[in-house]
Amino acid sequence: MIIDCHGHYTTAPRQLEEWRKRQIAELEDSKHAPAKGSLGISDDEIRASLEGAQLKLQRERGTDLTIFSPRAMGMSHHIGNETTSRHWSEHCNEMIHRVCALYPQKFVGVCQLPQSPGVAPANCIPELERCVKEFGFIGCNLNPDPSGGYWKEPPLTDKWWYPLYEKMVELEVPAMVHVSASCNPNFHGTGAHYINGDTTAFMQFITADLFRDFPTLKFIIPHGGGAVPYHWGRYRGLAQDMKRPPLKELLMNNVFFDTCVYHQPGIDLLLKVIPADNILFASEMVGAVKGVDPETGFNYDDTKRYIDAIDWVSRADKEKIFQGNVKRVYPRFKTRSAKR
Amino acid sequence: MIIDCHGHYTTAPRQLEEWRKRQIAELEDSKHAPAKGSLGISDDEIRASLEGAQLKLQRERGTDLTIFSPRAMGMSHHIGNETTSRHWSEHCNEMIHRVCALYPQKFVGVCQLPQSPGVAPANCIPELERCVKEFGFIGCNLNPDPSGGYWKEPPLTDKWWYPLYEKMVELEVPAMVHVSASCNPNFHGTGAHYINGDTTAFMQFITADLFRDFPTLKFIIPHGGGAVPYHWGRYRGLAQDMKRPPLKELLMNNVFFDTCVYHQPGIDLLLKVIPADNILFASEMVGAVKGVDPETGFNYDDTKRYIDAIDWVSRADKEKIFQGNVKRVYPRFKTRSAKR
Repeated sequence: MIIDCHGHYTTAPRQLEEWRKRQIAELEDSKHAPAKGSLGISDDEIRASLEGAQLKLQRERGTDLTIFSPRAMGMSHHIGNETTSRHWSEHCNEMIHRVCALYPQKFVGVCQLPQSPGVAPANCIPELERCVKEFGFIGCNLNPDPSGGYWKEPPLTDKWWYPLYEKMVELEVPAMVHVSASCNPNFHGTGAHYINGDTTAFMQFITADLFRDFPTLKFIIPHGGGAVPYHWGRYRGLAQDMKRPPLKELLMNNVFFDTCVYHQPGIDLLLKVIPADNILFASEMVGAVKGVDPETGFNYDDTKRYIDAIDWVSRADKEKIFQGNVKRVYPRFKTRSAKR
Repeated sequence: MIIDCHGHYTTAPRQLEEWRKRQIAELEDSKHAPAKGSLGISDDEIRASLEGAQLKLQRERGTDLTIFSPRAMGMSHHIGNETTSRHWSEHCNEMIHRVCALYPQKFVGVCQLPQSPGVAPANCIPELERCVKEFGFIGCNLNPDPSGGYWKEPPLTDKWWYPLYEKMVELEVPAMVHVSASCNPNFHGTGAHYINGDTTAFMQFITADLFRDFPTLKFIIPHGGGAVPYHWGRYRGLAQDMKRPPLKELLMNNVFFDTCVYHQPGIDLLLKVIPADNILFASEMVGAVKGVDPETGFNYDDTKRYIDAIDWVSRADKEKIFQGNVKRVYPRFKTRSAKR
């Protein structure tokens, strides 16, 4: 079985986006009491939104199952306030739940959290519990920068985040560290903010003792770990200069990289540098890069091809990358499969 | 000849740092009129600061000449105001000038600019002209984020920066895009802010027509281009999705990457993915990572070894990387050599 650990519902029926637009418009009206309301999306509309997109690509590319979460750009935690984020996150997560219920063999849910700038992350616990306990979700996406490109929250290693981590540990769910849209004109979203977020989070983990406090806490750093594997020598060297333990010991039981790197040499480097135990297969389709690479004739984000093309990684290691590690990083994946 | 295009004077005599500390302390005293004053550093002290450090490493590693600029962390443009930055930059640049005068065969100067948050970059023109015309410097370091990790300036492609670019083009000097210290607790300096700055700048260049406006403007993106070569497929794909010209056409006459990548697989990837015409040899020694890699027994930042170890790059291409490209990217390098 081939599990893609990083897919977002980028093709949701238009009513979801329309609801969001109304919500944002209503923020202007101070007399309007925010309400969650409903979306009015039918099951058939959900099916139609997936059949020609994610499901078609799964079939074409030979991947079996996608760990699926709301659109990352759409989270935009910087908009409005805590209530804004709560209503929006609930709708987005309910959409994922419906997708997973319609296609239980094809999708497993991961939730968006109702983060909001300056609001203690403990506010996310009820929605996380709902998604895990009621919907059977197996993880969450954690935005290290709810301000959307201004980086005003404390680092991920700060005690500010600890109540959420306690709940994650208790529920046995990992977080993918995933920023959302950038409203800072310096940072292009998918071309700079995403990658910077990944790099930043990893370096935060190096400098603190988060995993001494939470030995079983797990994070997936997407987009191939940002700049990290390419600069692996830099990170090993910085940790060493700072008298930190070797990276392996410091964080490799807790930090994992996905394979959303969109060309062969990048995937080659990732698999060469990072232990197979720390890599999870992913494509982020339908996602950031949608085109066909004229150099290969295939989609840039068809990452399975790059891994298949490598002949110097053992079958056992590829098995870990394609599915074995998922079961370790997302312990609820197993429970869920058993139930099903 | 082997030219290292990225060295900072990280070992300057203590009086420089002491002057800076006094300057910062005096900022607290609103009645104090800022004055440049003098450093009281002798030529012998300068020699001593280099002999056991940069000069020793040049000899040991077999590099001939370093393109040398003030300490990048030290620039800290976020401190004080325009006058603060002007006095400090002048001192730092004068130190580089003295180094280059003492060791004209070993160092060529690149200047720090007196940037200051919110101050139009045109304010840097007098110091740039002084350094180029009076001191014989051949380039400058341009900080895309004088706020030190809060990214409050317009993107590098904004007209905000154009007056400085006009002067750079007129003087025929390139800029290395180099952030300075981060005062945002989210961003570790050398482990996150530096690399993010590189990635961010490259993506800014993709999204705008800066090089149509300035066809001869040149930038060096240090630290191996941040995350860019590792995600080369992503950047090609994003440009394509955005209907931008292919990267080669869009910016490869104007943007160059250095080789400050501190492990073999990273350098392998860089040389595989980026055309040799766009790579400049560099180590950033004595710099961000000072230790010895236990896996190789050599310094992480001894980047020449990694390039030497590669047998699939032609001699002609290595010659470009080690010295040929420098003469193209820094046109004043040639003039300077001829004069000497």
